[in-house]
Amino acid sequence: MGIRGEVEGAQAEIRRRNLSRLLQELHVSRPLSRSELAARLHLDRSTVASLVSELAARRIVQERRRSKSIPQSPGRPSPVVELRADGPGALAVDLATDWMGAAVVGLGGKVMASTRRDVSLCNSQPEKVVEDLGALVRPLLASLENGPRIVAIGVSVPGLVRSGDGHVHEAPALGWRDVPIRELIRDEFQDLNVPVFVGNDADLATSAEHLRGSGRGTTDFICIWGEGGLGAGIVVDGRLLAGSAGYAGEVGHVTVDPDGDLCHCGARGCLESVVGEEALLRRSGRDPLGGTAALEDLIGAADRGDQAALSALAESGRGLGIGIAGLVNIFNPNRVSLGGLYARVYPYVRAPILRELEKRAMPAPRAMVDLVTVRLGANALLLGAAELALAPLLNDPAIMPLQQEPAPNDAIDTAEALASAAHGMLAQG
Amino acid sequence: MGIRGEVEGAQAEIRRRNLSRLLQELHVSRPLSRSELAARLHLDRSTVASLVSELAARRIVQERRRSKSIPQSPGRPSPVVELRADGPGALAVDLATDWMGAAVVGLGGKVMASTRRDVSLCNSQPEKVVEDLGALVRPLLASLENGPRIVAIGVSVPGLVRSGDGHVHEAPALGWRDVPIRELIRDEFQDLNVPVFVGNDADLATSAEHLRGSGRGTTDFICIWGEGGLGAGIVVDGRLLAGSAGYAGEVGHVTVDPDGDLCHCGARGCLESVVGEEALLRRSGRDPLGGTAALEDLIGAADRGDQAALSALAESGRGLGIGIAGLVNIFNPNRVSLGGLYARVYPYVRAPILRELEKRAMPAPRAMVDLVTVRLGANALLLGAAELALAPLLNDPAIMPLQQEPAPNDAIDTAEALASAAHGMLAQG
Repeated sequence: MGIRGEVEGAQAEIRRRNLSRLLQELHVSRPLSRSELAARLHLDRSTVASLVSELAARRIVQERRRSKSIPQSPGRPSPVVELRADGPGALAVDLATDWMGAAVVGLGGKVMASTRRDVSLCNSQPEKVVEDLGALVRPLLASLENGPRIVAIGVSVPGLVRSGDGHVHEAPALGWRDVPIRELIRDEFQDLNVPVFVGNDADLATSAEHLRGSGRGTTDFICIWGEGGLGAGIVVDGRLLAGSAGYAGEVGHVTVDPDGDLCHCGARGCLESVVGEEALLRRSGRDPLGGTAALEDLIGAADRGDQAALSALAESGRGLGIGIAGLVNIFNPNRVSLGGLYARVYPYVRAPILRELEKRAMPAPRAMVDLVTVRLGANALLLGAAELALAPLLNDPAIMPLQQEPAPNDAIDTAEALASAAHGMLAQG
Repeated sequence: MGIRGEVEGAQAEIRRRNLSRLLQELHVSRPLSRSELAARLHLDRSTVASLVSELAARRIVQERRRSKSIPQSPGRPSPVVELRADGPGALAVDLATDWMGAAVVGLGGKVMASTRRDVSLCNSQPEKVVEDLGALVRPLLASLENGPRIVAIGVSVPGLVRSGDGHVHEAPALGWRDVPIRELIRDEFQDLNVPVFVGNDADLATSAEHLRGSGRGTTDFICIWGEGGLGAGIVVDGRLLAGSAGYAGEVGHVTVDPDGDLCHCGARGCLESVVGEEALLRRSGRDPLGGTAALEDLIGAADRGDQAALSALAESGRGLGIGIAGLVNIFNPNRVSLGGLYARVYPYVRAPILRELEKRAMPAPRAMVDLVTVRLGANALLLGAAELALAPLLNDPAIMPLQQEPAPNDAIDTAEALASAAHGMLAQG
């Protein structure tokens, strides 16, 4: 490759990065004017114009005048760049213990349509589950006329997922072991002809909460999810903790009481066996496998001041506090957020959790951590699965084909574009 | 700034990054020829020549012919680029419970000279400690005629250090609270006129082990240190876990037995209070504060097959295994390394640790983790403190002044240098 080729290669790579940065900004923010984009990305306006023009030609963004209801400074209002409703999107799939759900999610985390079927997937045949999923999803896809073009599928699974190939190593809640779920789903939706990405449910929901919910603006963030078992997602310095193979974050199976009750995993005194849904129901005198109905009954009893219910909840709060104190000592997070079961019983477990934090977390990290509940509700899993699916597009928007020639303002001086683009990239990194 | 200025700015920034990459490579590797450097850094040879020439002009590296004892391919042997013995270096300081140590460490982690004074720093006056440190270090600095030029001071402290300003929030082992140690040391060594960096002892020793010892080649690595208390350093995806303010990694104060013995920190059943040195000595019937002598006595008894000593060690191994299993579930590391006390008693604690891992760690992450002992010995703390001090130089070698004009081969074509340099940088990121 000659000198010209090398210059062009470097220039193309810098441009790809800046396209990605601009699209990411729109993805997590709101419609922005070109000058707002230039300021946020440390790029000059001509580079932003060129990047916007390319994203428009790939039918990812469009420009429109700001609506007149928003107060403007005098003069002609500048147009804003926004994500197209018919731009690229993901099919997000959520396989849970008691349901399967799916949604079409556009860039910007917009749920365009969703569907769900309440059905136990416990000890189910993976092939049958994927076939049923196909039947559930087809009408959803057919219903979207001017919706997003599906460019990838993201799948949430309650289990250990190998990050390299989306293989489900083990999903005890489903009774699955060594299931090539990525291949099964790719085959079922082969007419879509898009890549499939698989992630752990707690990880995916946490990444959605970090991006758009209770973890927004934090660098170090922990979500603890109580849905059947106890899962967690951990964000370290802005990135989801994966571990060497994607198995990190199994907080539910950290020992908090070495001689405690036997856990499903075979060990004794795991956090999950001490404070999971089953332990809470058992402690309150209810059927440990009573599920949602038993939980609602328990919460109703607590609301009426029933002492047995209150003390069972307080005991769960204490165990949860012991676990959270350990995580605060290990991770020094800005914020810990409770989801699922723990968000619903938050008023009853908050005080005992804070008491254990006071006793067991080191003063310095304890002083800086907030305890909150999740904010995205049931959508967190689907939004997280969509993030996983859209990550390659966000990383390289040029994977979307050009639908038209970029506007002529794209043809700006090469040296200027390269210099400005490189500057912007370096200011970022 | 005009177009020319922007191009030059971007070019300078890309060059700084490549200078940094080349120096980092020599820092962790060995003397390398220009073509080896070009291959490892994905740069062309003319760029490498230009970078080497600049580092030589800043008196950081030099080139020499390979010695003839190394077998060579036929033809004239190519010279290797090596770090200069009289190049930049750090003054590394280790303030521990029972000693203060210092060393002059060159790039490449080479300890040029070191000194140590055995003295209890428990409940000592920080001002007095720093004054004594000055008296200890002056002869060391005076002894180095052709040694490195000291460009920074790195300090290891057994306590919580705020990463922003090197303030010691709390160092219970020293009885320190809110000590501005960075300012004290800067004042003591103001004639050196160099910046001072302060870090937590376990973090610093772990970063040294990761770079040059038992963690080399791993992405996710945990070191557990038993020196007085129990500390840990955790490497996540190649980087030391810091947390939102630098307080992360306090594994010693994670609860593993909620109603266990009282810990120094005021909580019950912390890992440190279950398996720390004091707990081990107490369990074996020895004075918990007996220190090194009591430990040697305990190990001697175990070597002779003394049952009480063996069972006390096995019990510590069990507790340690419970803690490590939790960390394996949380972090999915490639490797866990034991240091300090735990390295010395490794033959006696290995089996019980592995038993608990078998029982309590999830099969998938357990299957991929190695258990080993540290390799750098007593130098780990000083090497880690030196890494902390040298990080700004490694990040921007141009902070060292030019001592001469770069060699004329530096004057290569601007467009080629920019393109090649940008390519190399992008290949890296």
